[in-house]
Amino acid sequence: MPVDNEQTAQVAGGTGTARPGTRRPGGRTARTRAAVRDAVVAGLTEHGYSGLTVEYVAEHSGVHKTTLYRRWGGVDGLVADTLDLAGEDGWAPPDTGSLDGDLRALALEVVHSFADPAAAAPSSAVIAAAFQSEPAAQALRAYYAERFARCEVIVDRAVARGELPGPRSAVDGGALVRAVAAPLFFRLFITREGLDEPDADHAVAVALAAAHAGTFTKET
Amino acid sequence: MPVDNEQTAQVAGGTGTARPGTRRPGGRTARTRAAVRDAVVAGLTEHGYSGLTVEYVAEHSGVHKTTLYRRWGGVDGLVADTLDLAGEDGWAPPDTGSLDGDLRALALEVVHSFADPAAAAPSSAVIAAAFQSEPAAQALRAYYAERFARCEVIVDRAVARGELPGPRSAVDGGALVRAVAAPLFFRLFITREGLDEPDADHAVAVALAAAHAGTFTKET
Repeated sequence: MPVDNEQTAQVAGGTGTARPGTRRPGGRTARTRAAVRDAVVAGLTEHGYSGLTVEYVAEHSGVHKTTLYRRWGGVDGLVADTLDLAGEDGWAPPDTGSLDGDLRALALEVVHSFADPAAAAPSSAVIAAAFQSEPAAQALRAYYAERFARCEVIVDRAVARGELPGPRSAVDGGALVRAVAAPLFFRLFITREGLDEPDADHAVAVALAAAHAGTFTKET
Repeated sequence: MPVDNEQTAQVAGGTGTARPGTRRPGGRTARTRAAVRDAVVAGLTEHGYSGLTVEYVAEHSGVHKTTLYRRWGGVDGLVADTLDLAGEDGWAPPDTGSLDGDLRALALEVVHSFADPAAAAPSSAVIAAAFQSEPAAQALRAYYAERFARCEVIVDRAVARGELPGPRSAVDGGALVRAVAAPLFFRLFITREGLDEPDADHAVAVALAAAHAGTFTKET
């Protein structure tokens, strides 16, 4: 689930290529915010949440410590804003022409974004930060809620194409795309079993079988 | 997935009631190991992995620091052994007489074990520790591999009862029980959406629908 900045893309699992035509808000404030975000990501990667300090962010962003405290409040606010900023991107879910293709592309994006330990480090660091910081946990929740809301179009298109039964409103698209992602993150961060392309295929197969059986049909 | 000690049970999601007839190995070494484990769990809960020190464990277990270093090597060894010990319990998966009942009971065990923040804290702390410590990650991987291996009997029994198609060896029981657990842990620790009993029902419904569609049938 990539965004338009390579560093931010890596937060929470992006692959990081800018999409042409993506709006890049400019201006000094936006540049400052991006510099601060890059420093937060670097700090989380290098030291983890518990080792991240406002001093580190000041040193690596070139933004004065008093400015950081005034605008972000402290480490928790900095981490939360990094995720907020990661959510303000032009990322759109895959559009391959079929439900199976879209879900596979989405699952493979997760697999590939975590395949390189260096690229995966910031994402892991933010997920880890949420264990110790309630603001980080809230920001993570908001980030994924928004990200999965974007993915619901995959399911809308599938219903429109007749690939899934029922009216568009009857299928819980958010639950379906979460069902694809869950086993991948589970292997990565809970059972620590590692993740490879066959895992993506299997996650899609399970979610699709359940979808065709009507398991994601909302009660009305 | 409970074990015979309430503190350990809470590591990695147990509900913590001793099963009658569970063997309790005695002796001074076992008591020392249990005291050390309790102190590690308390320390992880209180301070997180990055705040856990051998000094803390010594103080709270009554075991001398030099003994801790000699037998466990340091913090990483202490955390890993806590998980190893959590795996050496008498826990067995639910046996309700049906696949649906067993999987529901298993899923509800996860939901309930994480419903109380205080009870869930040690489990969360160990999962969080794995982000910062490779030995903790390895121990977590071994813990869950062993735990899910125990759960495969649920699927064996279902095949024997004719609830799932194919010979027993053809169904990947480990993948099926992981599919039930994954969405629960995903909500808890990745999307931070919270977890309730309907989530358990839904996870079971998805996994069962996929199982009946043959998605967990191994290639031979």
